Amino acid sequence: MYIKNNVNTFQKLIKVLKNYWEDCGCSIVQPLDIEVGAATSHPVTFFNAIGPEPVFVSYVQLSRRPMDSRYGKNPYRLQQYYQFQVVIKPSPKNMLSLYLDSLKMLGLSCEKNDISFVEDNWENPTLGAWGSGWEVRLNGIEITQFTYFQQMGGLECNPVTGEITYGLERLALFLQNVHNVYDLIWNNSKRGPLLYRDLFFFNEVEQSIYNCEYTNVEFLLTLFSHYEKEIKYLINMEKSLIRPAYERVLKAIHIFNLLDARKVISTTERQNYILRIRKLSHMIAKVYYLSRKKLGFPMLKTIINS
Amino acid sequence: MYIKNNVNTFQKLIKVLKNYWEDCGCSIVQPLDIEVGAATSHPVTFFNAIGPEPVFVSYVQLSRRPMDSRYGKNPYRLQQYYQFQVVIKPSPKNMLSLYLDSLKMLGLSCEKNDISFVEDNWENPTLGAWGSGWEVRLNGIEITQFTYFQQMGGLECNPVTGEITYGLERLALFLQNVHNVYDLIWNNSKRGPLLYRDLFFFNEVEQSIYNCEYTNVEFLLTLFSHYEKEIKYLINMEKSLIRPAYERVLKAIHIFNLLDARKVISTTERQNYILRIRKLSHMIAKVYYLSRKKLGFPMLKTIINS
Repeated sequence: MYIKNNVNTFQKLIKVLKNYWEDCGCSIVQPLDIEVGAATSHPVTFFNAIGPEPVFVSYVQLSRRPMDSRYGKNPYRLQQYYQFQVVIKPSPKNMLSLYLDSLKMLGLSCEKNDISFVEDNWENPTLGAWGSGWEVRLNGIEITQFTYFQQMGGLECNPVTGEITYGLERLALFLQNVHNVYDLIWNNSKRGPLLYRDLFFFNEVEQSIYNCEYTNVEFLLTLFSHYEKEIKYLINMEKSLIRPAYERVLKAIHIFNLLDARKVISTTERQNYILRIRKLSHMIAKVYYLSRKKLGFPMLKTIINS
Repeated sequence: MYIKNNVNTFQKLIKVLKNYWEDCGCSIVQPLDIEVGAATSHPVTFFNAIGPEPVFVSYVQLSRRPMDSRYGKNPYRLQQYYQFQVVIKPSPKNMLSLYLDSLKMLGLSCEKNDISFVEDNWENPTLGAWGSGWEVRLNGIEITQFTYFQQMGGLECNPVTGEITYGLERLALFLQNVHNVYDLIWNNSKRGPLLYRDLFFFNEVEQSIYNCEYTNVEFLLTLFSHYEKEIKYLINMEKSLIRPAYERVLKAIHIFNLLDARKVISTTERQNYILRIRKLSHMIAKVYYLSRKKLGFPMLKTIINS
C-alpha cells in the first residue's frame, strides 16, 4: 500500500517514523542524556545486542561529532545531528521491506526516486562493534545505514541484531526540498514557522568554536585517564556496576572525540586510544553477558510466551 | 469536550501529551543529552525564559536526582525519572484550561477525581530561577508543577514564561492503576508487554550504588572547580561562548548533586556551592540577553507577523 504523507516539518518526520515503527510492534524509548557520537551507543542498543534476548526498540538520538564542526558555514555538515534508530533482534527476514515501507509512509516514492543500497560494512571500533550492512542512498545522498551486527563489545552476536539508522536532517532536506539544513522547518503553527536555524544556528557556531579552539586539552587528557581507571574499578568490583561503567565509557569516547577535534592526537596515539576504550567496552560486554546468563536470560520468555 | 482515551502504557502517555500540545500549536523538541536534575535546565527553557521573545515548546526530559537513589527498593522514588515539560511565553490567559484539557485527553475525569492546586512557589537556586506556582495534586499525589517564572538566571522575566511540568511516572501509575513504578507497562505489543522494570530496574539499583557509595569525591571536587573556571573563561572571552558555557553549568550542577548524594557537603558549604553556580548562571543569562538585544530580539517578528 502506498500512503502519501506530506511530511513537511522535522517534527512531523519524527512523528511519522515513530508512529510507523510503533504500529510494527516496536517500543519507543527515550534518548540517552549523555553526549554520544552515534545512536548505536545508547545502552538499549549496546546491551541488547549482546546475548540471545530479543529486542525491538526505536528512539531519536542526538549525535555529537566534534570533528564535523563547521562553524555553521556548511549547509550539510553539523557537529550535532539527529538520528532515528531502530534495533531488532532477532533481525526479521522482512527487515528490508519494513524499512522500504517506512519510506513510503514518509511519502517517498521508490519508483520516482533512485533508492540504492551500497555495501558498506559498518564498524564502531571503540564499542568493539562491527556488522555487515548497506548505506541506503536516495538520489545519491546517504539517508540511512542498515546494519546486521556481527559483534558488539567484542562478543559474537547470536542471533544477529538488525539496526536501521536514519539520518533525519538528510531525509528532511529531501522531504522539504531545501538545500540548507538551517532552512529546514522544524514546526509550523499559527505563530509561524520555527526553523532549524532558530533552534540550532548559534549553537552550531559556538560549539564549533569551542570544540576546535577552546577545549582544555590537558584537562581532557586527565578526564580520559580518570574515566579509564574508574571504569576498571567499577567493573572489577565483586558486584560490577555495569551500567554506570558503560556510561563512563561513553564519556571517555566523547572526550576522545573532543581531543580528535583539537587535532592533538597523532595516528599512533589514535589507535592506542581506540584500543584502550575497546578493551573497556569488551570488559563490560562480558560481565553483562554473564549477568544475564545467570538470570537465565529473562527476556527470552517474552518471545516464548508470544 | 471530554475524550476518553485508554492511556494504558507509558509510551502512549508520552504520545498523547505530545499530540495534544502539538495540536495547541506547540513545537516538540528533543531532550538535552546532558544529565540534568530538572526539565527546566534544558537550554530551550533557560534561554527562552529570558527577554521578550516568544516561545511555545515541549519535550520529554530525563531528570537525574542522585539524592533520590533508593536502590530500586522504593516503588515511588527513583534517582531518574521522566518529566514532560511545556514552556509558553507570553503565558496565555487560558494556560490553566489548556492544562486541564490535557488531563481530559489522558482520560482523567476532573469530576471523578480530586484535582487540587496547592500554592507552591517554585525555586531553582542554581539557575537563579524562581516563580509563583502550584503543585497539581491528583487524589493527593503531586502530578504536575505549574509555574509562572518571575526570574531566570537572576533576570526579571518580562513577559512571564509559563511552565507546566508533568511527572510522567506519577501520572502513569494512576492511569495504569499500578502501585509500583516497576510494574508500569512501557509498551504493549504482540511480543508481550515491555515493563518499566525491564528497562530500568537494574539501572536503578546500580546507579544508586554508584551515586551513594562509589563516586570519587576528590575527582568530583576537581571537576567542579575546573568547570567553574572554564565557564568564566568562556563567558569573558571577547565573543562569549554562551551555549557551551551553559552546558558546563549543567555539568557543574550535576556534580554538585552527586557530591550531595555522597553527603560530603556541609550546610554552609552547600549554600556556598549554590551561590557559586548561581553566579555563573547569572553571568550567562546577562550575556545571552545582551546578545539577543543586539540582534533586535529576532524571534519577536514571529509574533508580530502572525
